[in-house]
Amino acid sequence: MPITEDQKSEIVQSRGRGAMTLRPISEGMEGHLYTAYPVLDHGFVRVVDYMGNDAAICQAARVSYGAGTKSVSDDEGLIRYLMRHWHSTPFEMCEIKLHVKLPVFVARQWIRHRTANVNEISARYSILDREFYIPAPEHLAAQSVINNQGRGATLEGEEASRVLDILKGDANRAYDHYEQMISQDGQAGLARELARMNLPANIMTQWYWKVDLHNLFHFLRLRADSHAQYEIRVYADQICQIVKDWVPAAYAAFEDYRLNAASLSGRGAEILKRRLAGEIVTFEDSGMSKGEWREFTNAWGS
Amino acid sequence: MPITEDQKSEIVQSRGRGAMTLRPISEGMEGHLYTAYPVLDHGFVRVVDYMGNDAAICQAARVSYGAGTKSVSDDEGLIRYLMRHWHSTPFEMCEIKLHVKLPVFVARQWIRHRTANVNEISARYSILDREFYIPAPEHLAAQSVINNQGRGATLEGEEASRVLDILKGDANRAYDHYEQMISQDGQAGLARELARMNLPANIMTQWYWKVDLHNLFHFLRLRADSHAQYEIRVYADQICQIVKDWVPAAYAAFEDYRLNAASLSGRGAEILKRRLAGEIVTFEDSGMSKGEWREFTNAWGS
Amino acid sequence: MPITEDQKSEIVQSRGRGAMTLRPISEGMEGHLYTAYPVLDHGFVRVVDYMGNDAAICQAARVSYGAGTKSVSDDEGLIRYLMRHWHSTPFEMCEIKLHVKLPVFVARQWIRHRTANVNEISARYSILDREFYIPAPEHLAAQSVINNQGRGATLEGEEASRVLDILKGDANRAYDHYEQMISQDGQAGLARELARMNLPANIMTQWYWKVDLHNLFHFLRLRADSHAQYEIRVYADQICQIVKDWVPAAYAAFEDYRLNAASLSGRGAEILKRRLAGEIVTFEDSGMSKGEWREFTNAWGS
Amino acid sequence: MPITEDQKSEIVQSRGRGAMTLRPISEGMEGHLYTAYPVLDHGFVRVVDYMGNDAAICQAARVSYGAGTKSVSDDEGLIRYLMRHWHSTPFEMCEIKLHVKLPVFVARQWIRHRTANVNEISARYSILDREFYIPAPEHLAAQSVINNQGRGATLEGEEASRVLDILKGDANRAYDHYEQMISQDGQAGLARELARMNLPANIMTQWYWKVDLHNLFHFLRLRADSHAQYEIRVYADQICQIVKDWVPAAYAAFEDYRLNAASLSGRGAEILKRRLAGEIVTFEDSGMSKGEWREFTNAWGS
Repeated sequence: MPITEDQKSEIVQSRGRGAMTLRPISEGMEGHLYTAYPVLDHGFVRVVDYMGNDAAICQAARVSYGAGTKSVSDDEGLIRYLMRHWHSTPFEMCEIKLHVKLPVFVARQWIRHRTANVNEISARYSILDREFYIPAPEHLAAQSVINNQGRGATLEGEEASRVLDILKGDANRAYDHYEQMISQDGQAGLARELARMNLPANIMTQWYWKVDLHNLFHFLRLRADSHAQYEIRVYADQICQIVKDWVPAAYAAFEDYRLNAASLSGRGAEILKRRLAGEIVTFEDSGMSKGEWREFTNAWGS
Repeated sequence: MPITEDQKSEIVQSRGRGAMTLRPISEGMEGHLYTAYPVLDHGFVRVVDYMGNDAAICQAARVSYGAGTKSVSDDEGLIRYLMRHWHSTPFEMCEIKLHVKLPVFVARQWIRHRTANVNEISARYSILDREFYIPAPEHLAAQSVINNQGRGATLEGEEASRVLDILKGDANRAYDHYEQMISQDGQAGLARELARMNLPANIMTQWYWKVDLHNLFHFLRLRADSHAQYEIRVYADQICQIVKDWVPAAYAAFEDYRLNAASLSGRGAEILKRRLAGEIVTFEDSGMSKGEWREFTNAWGS
Repeated sequence: MPITEDQKSEIVQSRGRGAMTLRPISEGMEGHLYTAYPVLDHGFVRVVDYMGNDAAICQAARVSYGAGTKSVSDDEGLIRYLMRHWHSTPFEMCEIKLHVKLPVFVARQWIRHRTANVNEISARYSILDREFYIPAPEHLAAQSVINNQGRGATLEGEEASRVLDILKGDANRAYDHYEQMISQDGQAGLARELARMNLPANIMTQWYWKVDLHNLFHFLRLRADSHAQYEIRVYADQICQIVKDWVPAAYAAFEDYRLNAASLSGRGAEILKRRLAGEIVTFEDSGMSKGEWREFTNAWGS
Repeated sequence: MPITEDQKSEIVQSRGRGAMTLRPISEGMEGHLYTAYPVLDHGFVRVVDYMGNDAAICQAARVSYGAGTKSVSDDEGLIRYLMRHWHSTPFEMCEIKLHVKLPVFVARQWIRHRTANVNEISARYSILDREFYIPAPEHLAAQSVINNQGRGATLEGEEASRVLDILKGDANRAYDHYEQMISQDGQAGLARELARMNLPANIMTQWYWKVDLHNLFHFLRLRADSHAQYEIRVYADQICQIVKDWVPAAYAAFEDYRLNAASLSGRGAEILKRRLAGEIVTFEDSGMSKGEWREFTNAWGS
């Protein structure tokens, strides 16, 4: 259960309080505001604020004085043009603020995206909750045998249950000990900033994370990708659903020019041109390493 | 005249269009939205969007679920605490987007603040307007005789009028020639990206500039300071007036802990302590260089 | 003449002073250190310091303890892998510091790359030199008739000489007036920070610019591109020559995966796949806008 | 034991390999290169590369052509001036690359400093070592009773030994289970990227961390401060010792103007001035909150 009844009721209250504003709004985004979308067993993503919309991207690109009189289809064309030609600054003119609850080992990947603002709950100051990510059985994957940095088949039978038992048992014992160490019942109580070191990386943390749309797209391109670890990809996927409603034209352009795009090396482009001209190009002919050739033929056939 | 009638009417229209939002708003800021505040003879600053308010700073600091039930005075205390202890991340949770019209030589100072998003009108793409900053007579200052990087007394009489004649004459001639070079009347017309090189640094440019509150405070501390060049300080001063209405508690804390603050070196603090204990400390005694001693006694008496 | 005899002799002296270091070095880069490579009529680029080499990229990727025992070909393979999969952080582990002399209008484009460190000479503090970029006749291009943001054919005959006369005349007059305004001969002398506003955008400025290799590659990809303005592209081209000698393996990977790469949208990739399967795809069939189709067929034939 | 014999011998080899360079060097820093300085029970800091020295800061500030002919005392004066007036860009012209081994919970604080480059060993890719930070008995502190975010007295007797037993026991059990889960002996073996979630926050990680001197000073000011958690402060203190030898003049200025500096709010400065004029100022008179008054009188007496 990612959020408590009290928290739910705070969210409902927040959604009940509207106010007039002169700022640009995004109807699609207003529908998402504050709602906590569950991710993993105890996590969530929710939008707590946003700035801008599709029109704001165009206004910034035009450095214009008003909302502009341009049609929606003009705006879409401009947005596609900007995305295609890597004009990133107009996309930076939109901003989103998320409240995310996530396992610490996911937070450590996420924070590597440096162009963002973050406020995380402090385990120096606060006592963390007893909440740990435990993978669903279908996500208990074996180490990949071809990729050092990936997953293979799902674990089965006894091996799976042994792993789950370990993860649950260790998490609970670690938390019991955490509580015992900080307890001030008949003892001084270890400092929180020290006691936290006993907690495993699947404990849940929370933060406010604020980022502009350009840098969010960069995050999504890397983290909604099939090579990203499943546990961060589910957050990225959920955010994609939200962004699609916030800035539909920008998201569509992002999908076409980034998410679904193919990047060809000079060598790769050369080979495709030879093929288009009817030539058959083999590995020996390609000038590529084995790894490159495998990735290339996976994408383009052989 | 910084803006045209058409632009004015676009602004009036924007201010006439309200919409409901679930987002936090700042009443004080809603009153400023879109209005162009004149700065210098042809420039302006206007807010085109904002995110957050005083309460949002506290919510981020608390990583909270709702608007929170804390009182305004609790929030003020927390904000002062955060500012005093250099906890900058909660202030990063507010964001402002400005539309600014400013001389190019001011833009070149301004852009040195890198943690911000910018869309400037492109003189490769557009034809710039015939608008140049010409200082008011009372701002025509002589080179300082004590500070290589500052101004002294105001120029007077013939010297002043000679300078104004030069600035006006050269600006207009440069612009006439710019127009002649790009004209396609009976000739090919020089590329805009080349013709612009003839325009002087007092020509007006425009941009959308978006920044978070922490970095805006940093900008304001440096640029609303008495050592900043007058022509950028007037922009900073105008922005201060706006921010004061946007986030009153955060601005008050900024004023006390940054704008009006005094920073003492270890040596300076030592001297003050000796003085508080009744000792008379002289330059010879101070361990300071002449420049430091001058700055120190200017601030604290001798 | 971009540099004076005195400056040349300072550079020669710097190249004469060697010292022992335990740091990794790049033989190729040592050959470039301090030498001023002329760019445009009065500009230059010169390396004043660097950190790292190809091996340092691999060491960082491996978080290794020593120089490592890996072979050069292993390192090349790893570097290609990192570049192909957008693992950018190991490239950030190399750093370069350049001293650049360039026209102000080029500096204004350049500075938009924010992830870099800059020290520019201050026209508040110093008096600028009488040096202006005047395009060579073969670079005096007309405005493009198909691209609002580009150049067309070269200007010819009288139109060209009229333009050159204007640029030279205005630059010299502006500088004469600049000197007259700041002169303290029989007058107070206008403050430098004000007088500079009369100087046109083709006056030369200088800065120290320091950037990591990842962000430098990003700069080079955009600025060594055929769509970049000629006057900044020549700087990027010169820097490419230097980087090639500094980190040969990384530069080769950059060339193949970025400079010579082709980026295909989802739609574009789809069309190529249909073509490879023998289908003929027309504009009507493509789902692309006219602009996209033109760019696509320019790259891939129709 | 923070490093193995093999690693030691790689370090010794690295220190044995000198080469000629034309770059500026810092004699003081050459003495530190590669050496691993132990921090905590299993951690270390070592410099793997650096760029620049005190003279380079001055050269950048002057945008100069050569090493310059300025005396060391001129350079010191300039450096103090730059530091005093917050001219930060010349300090950004020096760069340092560190290899650090540190507990994960320290790494999570450290990474919040975003303006730096990082390569961390990946627990998706690699198997982590069995190394955990266990506090020395004298650093086993109780939760502070006055500061929610701090430490109080040292734990004693049985309470201390109970805590140490828990930390050691849990760490070892977690690691045993980690090994069992990833083992491919008679089972598929859990993916590393999943198994790592069982490891506690005191496990050691490693990274290459590269930062410019200005941002390093910012890090040191916050983390070498008495309010910083002990476990990160010891890293900051060790880095201070290194920086002092690298850029002695800049470090001395940093010490005087930042580390040992006192920052006074407008109110605080006002009170000091009244006191210097002989007035006695009380809490009731001060306009300060209780917390501020306590901090103020702690620093300045009452």
